[in-house]
Amino acid sequence: MKSIGVGLIGSGFMGKAHALAWNAVRPVFGDVPAIRLAHLGDANDALARAKADEFGFAKASGDWRQVVADPEVDVVSITTPNKFHLEMAAAALAAGKDVWCEKPMAPNLADAEKMLAAARQSGKVAVLGYNYVQNPVIRHISKLIGEGAIGAVNHVRIEMDEDFMADPEAPFQQRHEKANGWGAIDDFAVHPLSLILTLFGPLERVMCDMAKPYSTRKSPEGEREVEVFDIATILMRLKNGASGFIAVSRTAWGRKGRIAIQIFGAKGSILFDQERLNEFQLYLTSDGPTEAGFRTVLSAPHHKPYDRFIPAPGHSLGFNDLKTIECRQLIGRMLGEEALSIDFEKGILIERAVDAMARSFQEGRWVDLG
Amino acid sequence: MKSIGVGLIGSGFMGKAHALAWNAVRPVFGDVPAIRLAHLGDANDALARAKADEFGFAKASGDWRQVVADPEVDVVSITTPNKFHLEMAAAALAAGKDVWCEKPMAPNLADAEKMLAAARQSGKVAVLGYNYVQNPVIRHISKLIGEGAIGAVNHVRIEMDEDFMADPEAPFQQRHEKANGWGAIDDFAVHPLSLILTLFGPLERVMCDMAKPYSTRKSPEGEREVEVFDIATILMRLKNGASGFIAVSRTAWGRKGRIAIQIFGAKGSILFDQERLNEFQLYLTSDGPTEAGFRTVLSAPHHKPYDRFIPAPGHSLGFNDLKTIECRQLIGRMLGEEALSIDFEKGILIERAVDAMARSFQEGRWVDLG
Amino acid sequence: MKSIGVGLIGSGFMGKAHALAWNAVRPVFGDVPAIRLAHLGDANDALARAKADEFGFAKASGDWRQVVADPEVDVVSITTPNKFHLEMAAAALAAGKDVWCEKPMAPNLADAEKMLAAARQSGKVAVLGYNYVQNPVIRHISKLIGEGAIGAVNHVRIEMDEDFMADPEAPFQQRHEKANGWGAIDDFAVHPLSLILTLFGPLERVMCDMAKPYSTRKSPEGEREVEVFDIATILMRLKNGASGFIAVSRTAWGRKGRIAIQIFGAKGSILFDQERLNEFQLYLTSDGPTEAGFRTVLSAPHHKPYDRFIPAPGHSLGFNDLKTIECRQLIGRMLGEEALSIDFEKGILIERAVDAMARSFQEGRWVDLG
Amino acid sequence: MKSIGVGLIGSGFMGKAHALAWNAVRPVFGDVPAIRLAHLGDANDALARAKADEFGFAKASGDWRQVVADPEVDVVSITTPNKFHLEMAAAALAAGKDVWCEKPMAPNLADAEKMLAAARQSGKVAVLGYNYVQNPVIRHISKLIGEGAIGAVNHVRIEMDEDFMADPEAPFQQRHEKANGWGAIDDFAVHPLSLILTLFGPLERVMCDMAKPYSTRKSPEGEREVEVFDIATILMRLKNGASGFIAVSRTAWGRKGRIAIQIFGAKGSILFDQERLNEFQLYLTSDGPTEAGFRTVLSAPHHKPYDRFIPAPGHSLGFNDLKTIECRQLIGRMLGEEALSIDFEKGILIERAVDAMARSFQEGRWVDLG
Repeated sequence: MKSIGVGLIGSGFMGKAHALAWNAVRPVFGDVPAIRLAHLGDANDALARAKADEFGFAKASGDWRQVVADPEVDVVSITTPNKFHLEMAAAALAAGKDVWCEKPMAPNLADAEKMLAAARQSGKVAVLGYNYVQNPVIRHISKLIGEGAIGAVNHVRIEMDEDFMADPEAPFQQRHEKANGWGAIDDFAVHPLSLILTLFGPLERVMCDMAKPYSTRKSPEGEREVEVFDIATILMRLKNGASGFIAVSRTAWGRKGRIAIQIFGAKGSILFDQERLNEFQLYLTSDGPTEAGFRTVLSAPHHKPYDRFIPAPGHSLGFNDLKTIECRQLIGRMLGEEALSIDFEKGILIERAVDAMARSFQEGRWVDLG
Repeated sequence: MKSIGVGLIGSGFMGKAHALAWNAVRPVFGDVPAIRLAHLGDANDALARAKADEFGFAKASGDWRQVVADPEVDVVSITTPNKFHLEMAAAALAAGKDVWCEKPMAPNLADAEKMLAAARQSGKVAVLGYNYVQNPVIRHISKLIGEGAIGAVNHVRIEMDEDFMADPEAPFQQRHEKANGWGAIDDFAVHPLSLILTLFGPLERVMCDMAKPYSTRKSPEGEREVEVFDIATILMRLKNGASGFIAVSRTAWGRKGRIAIQIFGAKGSILFDQERLNEFQLYLTSDGPTEAGFRTVLSAPHHKPYDRFIPAPGHSLGFNDLKTIECRQLIGRMLGEEALSIDFEKGILIERAVDAMARSFQEGRWVDLG
Repeated sequence: MKSIGVGLIGSGFMGKAHALAWNAVRPVFGDVPAIRLAHLGDANDALARAKADEFGFAKASGDWRQVVADPEVDVVSITTPNKFHLEMAAAALAAGKDVWCEKPMAPNLADAEKMLAAARQSGKVAVLGYNYVQNPVIRHISKLIGEGAIGAVNHVRIEMDEDFMADPEAPFQQRHEKANGWGAIDDFAVHPLSLILTLFGPLERVMCDMAKPYSTRKSPEGEREVEVFDIATILMRLKNGASGFIAVSRTAWGRKGRIAIQIFGAKGSILFDQERLNEFQLYLTSDGPTEAGFRTVLSAPHHKPYDRFIPAPGHSLGFNDLKTIECRQLIGRMLGEEALSIDFEKGILIERAVDAMARSFQEGRWVDLG
Repeated sequence: MKSIGVGLIGSGFMGKAHALAWNAVRPVFGDVPAIRLAHLGDANDALARAKADEFGFAKASGDWRQVVADPEVDVVSITTPNKFHLEMAAAALAAGKDVWCEKPMAPNLADAEKMLAAARQSGKVAVLGYNYVQNPVIRHISKLIGEGAIGAVNHVRIEMDEDFMADPEAPFQQRHEKANGWGAIDDFAVHPLSLILTLFGPLERVMCDMAKPYSTRKSPEGEREVEVFDIATILMRLKNGASGFIAVSRTAWGRKGRIAIQIFGAKGSILFDQERLNEFQLYLTSDGPTEAGFRTVLSAPHHKPYDRFIPAPGHSLGFNDLKTIECRQLIGRMLGEEALSIDFEKGILIERAVDAMARSFQEGRWVDLG
């Protein structure tokens, strides 16, 4: 592969994040083919053209199908709302393109399963935008767990909290409608699930509660009932035998991008919080009774591929850098290398877990994941 | 009441803590009657005599019934293992003594109910040793919540973790036998429950999972099955409408005395961790979008009764100081003042919640608390 | 010695702290003679009587000389303002009493030297109330340094900051007058100096700057000039070869009881902050390049004599507990044991260092400590 | 200006950082001309060509003069060792190019003054690579100070510490030779100085101590004397009347990229640490006595231009993002906008302060900065 032709559909928060990653991946890593920013698609021609200029794409279209059909495009970044993912991904895969689709897969499990089927049928690379697993700190935690540094893991807790829905005075939005899913579990819990899959493997069963702190919100037509749940708490058992929970909230005042992970093993513990994504904490019993304590380890060139960004330790990667690493892994897949990604095969496990959570909540009982 | 005659049964960890509190309460607070350390009872005469000398008690007995019967004793501290609580508390109450009994009430709910009946019948003061609610920081948090500083509370999370059972190589102990209760829920969850009761009022329902990270342990007779659960995770709903969870573990390496509380309201959030008992964190939306952040507030004379210990802020109270405050509250009750304590009436709510957790776990479903 | 008869002069902040320590020392430690609270002296009979009742002292006097003269008194706690220390300490020592005098020794070096002379002549125990060195965490740090855990120490930084003088609107007080000393260096810097002496030994030379953030303050007679310096920054060289600084401020908004210590050695580093007195941080190069980080070590029974207060780790000592340890060390001296205290011999080194700082500031140059 | 043609000299740590910034600045900000990566120069043709391909530059030269002479180049990034800065910057400026030169300006003050003269004579934009001042958090702190949020600043402390020289067993390097400057003050102290200039304005006087923790190091020819100082502690007075200090160390085990700033004012305080570059701490007396505490404020879109990178708060920028902001400010200068940079006019104040520190150390006295 002499160069990689990139198509991008969507130019919002995640569209821009993909564009930055595609711009940075070669200067950062150096070991990938030249990147051609070929074609950007958005809601209309004018917007597409403006964003193509900003992001450095050659062509622009108001019709995403032109991006998918473009012979200069090898891989398509799909960053539109998730209700479009199935159609776009299926089309791109059918057109022989590799796909990098933002998470979650689709608003319901049936559509997600169709996406997986499309990917399998195409034989193309199909990965999802789960960027938190790409953090060098998370990768190092995974390595430590794999090496048995903290012994067999027996208990895991993950919280993901933000506060963008926390204001009770904020008006009713489309995302408060049932059609958009359950709320916290499909919007947030998928991230903890991506981390659990990466670090520990699949879930065995879940027991879920959901809550809506504000049951109505203002709208131009008066108070409207909120149909989604901003909070969820989920008991879980992992196939590896560990117990634990996932707790997620979009109404947790003061939390901005928290993903707090606590991992307990027979010989130590590991803590991490995405709000301080450049550090983790490690407790080892081998440190002895009088001097053991959680070590605050700062990210460093030793934690690959931090070194590709900065040669000095403790200088910090940012959120967008994780997306650049994700992009490099995607390219690795395209080149046939071993690579760490949440692909559609793993993504479906996440979607099934979300579905199981919803059923558990509705039925008030544990649901097995089979 | 010119003076208060104190009887103490037991001189271990908690017995000493009571003795320190009885020694300190008058010099610290100044506003209580003279304290007479009248009679200490322990397993045998020699031990009782030695500890009486250390702790400053006049009389010593190898038979606890002599402490209860002593006419110079007005109030009895009971700090023995909880299987003795019913008999001792009932005897003391029947003898017309006030009672300060360590938590939890009893190994099973039936005995706890009998203790409550004995207290009601006696008309005496009967309080339990839940000291964490006495922290001036917790009291201030309670005040803030009551004043609506963070708005209506809609979500609560409490974790209590230590690691004294975390070593898989540690041998089988008596406490691993079923006769001693369930493990984490009666040993640990009672503390979060005491805090929930104090800060938010009673629970509505619970859904509990329990786990044993190490299912067998070494004993002189070979591997023995561990019959208790060192970990429990509990989904909960409070009567005030809030959702949340309690998670407790005695096998959490690196945690030494953690009781981490997260409280989310409509206008802000509050965080606390018992491992740093002299501070709490407060997030207020009124701090505005560009400068809002969790405030780390250090305990200070403003947070009563910190001022009785130290006139300067940020100088730190210790664990034993909380017991002295608890003692002052007990004396307040004896004097007919308003006082904050977990008395037997509140204690039974804790015991019932623990019982409901156990049933929930056994039956794999939510259990209402009535 | 069958029992120890205690005299206490003063019942303010520090007087109460001594009283609490004398009440607690036997129940906590168990291994000391009985403590007789014999005689409390204060500004007048009524106050002395009231405080004697609160604190548990038998006799009370409005004349401190009666405390010193009382044959039932073996040791005298002196907690009055430092301008009285010389007279009281000298009288007590001359009367054959041991002395526990609050810091600093005296408002000027000449008086402090007289106190030392009196102590030497008497042959009695004469120690000062430097309690921060008694923290089990500090003792453990000292042990680690002594064992070479972080290699040879080459750089030390200590900051001590509070904010009780930080309000520019606070009125002029007596303590703003020159007669009370220099301000930050005699009020605060003595504590860092006590820690330096304990951990590293004596200073070689100092270079001091002082600043007054608010040069005048309101008084009933109008604006008055502030004659003392609330801030001081001091470059230092230790006799062990290390460089470093001391920085102290009484006008540091938000700091309540901060004593932040940073110790750098050839093989690691140690951090401590008195506002979180139950923990320290330890960095060891031997933890390896990918997992080294500052360990947050919580105080625990292993850190003697924490175990005398609480048998469980991470449960926290308080400020007053440090005073109880200090009291135990004083008793140790009285009993001829090895004990850790800042006695008058060490205290004079602190006073000389303060004097050198003042001269350095006045002359704008380094001053050697000889 | 339709587009900007970029020349880059050097492709090491900082060369790559410039390249990443030039690649990212338009996709991130959207409001700048097209960026043409025109010409990369490095030590030889092969290296230059390889790096040009990686970083996306069109032309490559083994001779930097060709970069400077290239008519397609509008602005030259100079990222070579500082001994080359004068020659390269002067040539570029003389050729009519704008210049973005890495810090510090030159190994000695005389050369730095020549660089300033060259910039003045050329009338071109000439800025330095001080990236820490570009952090949106630092900018917000600057805004808060400017608005008087914490009142008049009266005391400032800055520490900058890393540990890349901390290993006593590390061999002698060229940078241990006197020819490379003083050590900590020119390598590190320049960063605190850039922050002080940006936040508070110029210094009035300094009093400096320097130390070498390891006076010799191993070399192939045996032990060699270390001629530079890895540690410096500097008392300072600012022209605004504030006192304070700068402390810098390259041998502080455990510190990786620490720049800890403490700012004390009449109405509050601000803290910042570069190791956690996405947050700052703010204490405001207006928060009241019972709830005041340092607020941990996370970086957010409100803190411009964080929003250009990520629309959600608390998601973290990285070190390289600061360089992209710096690049945007440079472009702003080129376009005649108001822009925040350390240009050669401000840079010379930093160089003079370093020179004053060196003289102060040599003469053991305060040195005025005029």
